[in-house]
Amino acid sequence: MPLSDMTKRQTLPKGRRSSVVALMVFDFDGVLTDNRVWVTQDGAETVCCNRADGLGFSLLRAAGIPCVILSTETNPVVTHRAKKLGIPAVQSVADKGEAMRKICRDHGVDLAQVAFVGNDLNDLPAFRIVGRRLCPRDAAPEVRRLCDHVLRTRGGAGVVREIAVRFKQLFRSRRRSY
Amino acid sequence: MPLSDMTKRQTLPKGRRSSVVALMVFDFDGVLTDNRVWVTQDGAETVCCNRADGLGFSLLRAAGIPCVILSTETNPVVTHRAKKLGIPAVQSVADKGEAMRKICRDHGVDLAQVAFVGNDLNDLPAFRIVGRRLCPRDAAPEVRRLCDHVLRTRGGAGVVREIAVRFKQLFRSRRRSY
Amino acid sequence: MPLSDMTKRQTLPKGRRSSVVALMVFDFDGVLTDNRVWVTQDGAETVCCNRADGLGFSLLRAAGIPCVILSTETNPVVTHRAKKLGIPAVQSVADKGEAMRKICRDHGVDLAQVAFVGNDLNDLPAFRIVGRRLCPRDAAPEVRRLCDHVLRTRGGAGVVREIAVRFKQLFRSRRRSY
Amino acid sequence: MPLSDMTKRQTLPKGRRSSVVALMVFDFDGVLTDNRVWVTQDGAETVCCNRADGLGFSLLRAAGIPCVILSTETNPVVTHRAKKLGIPAVQSVADKGEAMRKICRDHGVDLAQVAFVGNDLNDLPAFRIVGRRLCPRDAAPEVRRLCDHVLRTRGGAGVVREIAVRFKQLFRSRRRSY
Repeated sequence: MPLSDMTKRQTLPKGRRSSVVALMVFDFDGVLTDNRVWVTQDGAETVCCNRADGLGFSLLRAAGIPCVILSTETNPVVTHRAKKLGIPAVQSVADKGEAMRKICRDHGVDLAQVAFVGNDLNDLPAFRIVGRRLCPRDAAPEVRRLCDHVLRTRGGAGVVREIAVRFKQLFRSRRRSY
Repeated sequence: MPLSDMTKRQTLPKGRRSSVVALMVFDFDGVLTDNRVWVTQDGAETVCCNRADGLGFSLLRAAGIPCVILSTETNPVVTHRAKKLGIPAVQSVADKGEAMRKICRDHGVDLAQVAFVGNDLNDLPAFRIVGRRLCPRDAAPEVRRLCDHVLRTRGGAGVVREIAVRFKQLFRSRRRSY
Repeated sequence: MPLSDMTKRQTLPKGRRSSVVALMVFDFDGVLTDNRVWVTQDGAETVCCNRADGLGFSLLRAAGIPCVILSTETNPVVTHRAKKLGIPAVQSVADKGEAMRKICRDHGVDLAQVAFVGNDLNDLPAFRIVGRRLCPRDAAPEVRRLCDHVLRTRGGAGVVREIAVRFKQLFRSRRRSY
Repeated sequence: MPLSDMTKRQTLPKGRRSSVVALMVFDFDGVLTDNRVWVTQDGAETVCCNRADGLGFSLLRAAGIPCVILSTETNPVVTHRAKKLGIPAVQSVADKGEAMRKICRDHGVDLAQVAFVGNDLNDLPAFRIVGRRLCPRDAAPEVRRLCDHVLRTRGGAGVVREIAVRFKQLFRSRRRSY
């Protein structure tokens, strides 16, 4: 597939979108992290998260909003961070769209009731099928263009916290917010 | 509790505030660090501090101002950093307000004589009962709004050093400084 | 050699430049990283890469563009990162110009068909002999001055991803882009 | 000593300053690093250096300028980084002024021929006795005020490289450069 096709803007499905957000799904790298990875001499990887998101997940939990972390790659750092946050993580998925459908079946919620937060091209299959699309301020341009909400926060700088605090504002209006 | 209630502005207690600061209490994450946490493949956590704060604590010590680090979570990095700085650390506290009262009893100082530096929502119970409230420049908006002094420095960029150097200026005036 | 000679602007070879890019060669430090190195108490080195470049290499691979990483110093972090990315790495080279000639011979491509991405003075010998010169936005001034394309991205912030997405645009025009 | 005295501006010694720089002395934290320190769960410290400074020291070596790293604290990271750079390191010094005198005796150079690069209050005793004073752009205000040259580079972002490339310009003029 030529590069121009892989990155061109997709048309979005219209219509079937619930006003209720019954499930929040978060990409890991670039959303809960700043998309960077530290590589040691032993080849071990370290990523950079934010305490603000720990608080953000506590607020969402207190408000009764179920959350899931969705990551393509299998990575122990995702497992460890998810465990610390107390949020279930779905990893090792070939296609995020398929994984998203399975998550919805498992949680008994409709795709239209899901809000997904992603940051790059490999999130497009998931973005295309959910009801609400959000991304960090520094997401890839192709992602920023199709999202309902471009958040004020950069990846790894407290994306979850911003969503938790602005929850009503973000999901009341269907228009883009910047 | 709905999100809107958890983050809404609290009214501050008026009146009983000493012009003497007899004790400085510092939150750890977001104050002595930039609120970020590096997560390794083994799940170990690393935080980022600043040499400038080591110098800041030396200046405060030379000026005879007792200091305490107060952190909700029990974390070995807090223990290690506090030991290196030579500052006592109080950890594993369910509520920072209660912990603050105990610290004051232990030090024999009045809450009105305490200056507390925090950065996020979980610091609110402590902020509500102390005489002086300070926060880094990049603290949560809810915290910035209620603080007497929003410092010029971001968390982890030398907050303690700024306070040490500006000590007289900060605690002479009761008005906000930016 | 006096400092003034080591850093002064070189004249570029004109003429023999192919409109086809048959091979992309990437410097490591300052291109795939932000040029920083973390040093532990044990003397181990850690560098900071970006997930966006993993995606960038996938796009280049899908588009059929062969890629090579070229690094003067022998460093296990380069080996580990290159393996994770699935890109061959050439290390331990005394002179990057000589190494570049050998890489071209091994790949059976003409130097005029090579695009090289570097960031500092030690990349000059390689820059002088290839068809296309690119550098991150924060490359050394001496490098920025001689490059055909100064990318929009800083080193370690997704240089490969930018090249992959802008591939046609970058290599269609022979003029500088900023 | 009250805080106000410890940080107030010192008057500088005039006169005896050589136009020849026979020795460059570099503070470590805040000059060769960004003054930050990463603390692991085990209490181990990691600092962040820059590859550009490796190149900078190579340029200074090629130009025949001897260099020394001077650090108050004894820290294995200083030892390891200095070894990698091939630069001698003087550590564990109670007073940087005294240490500076000893370094000059050992190298057989006059204090007036030394250029020192520091960033914070504990560098003042050394700054007061050397011929040339330089600091990174983000040095403490008290240091910036007394330096002959405030560099364009922040600590850990390539301070040595800037000095190497601008060597003649920096040490020809006696006026401040910004």
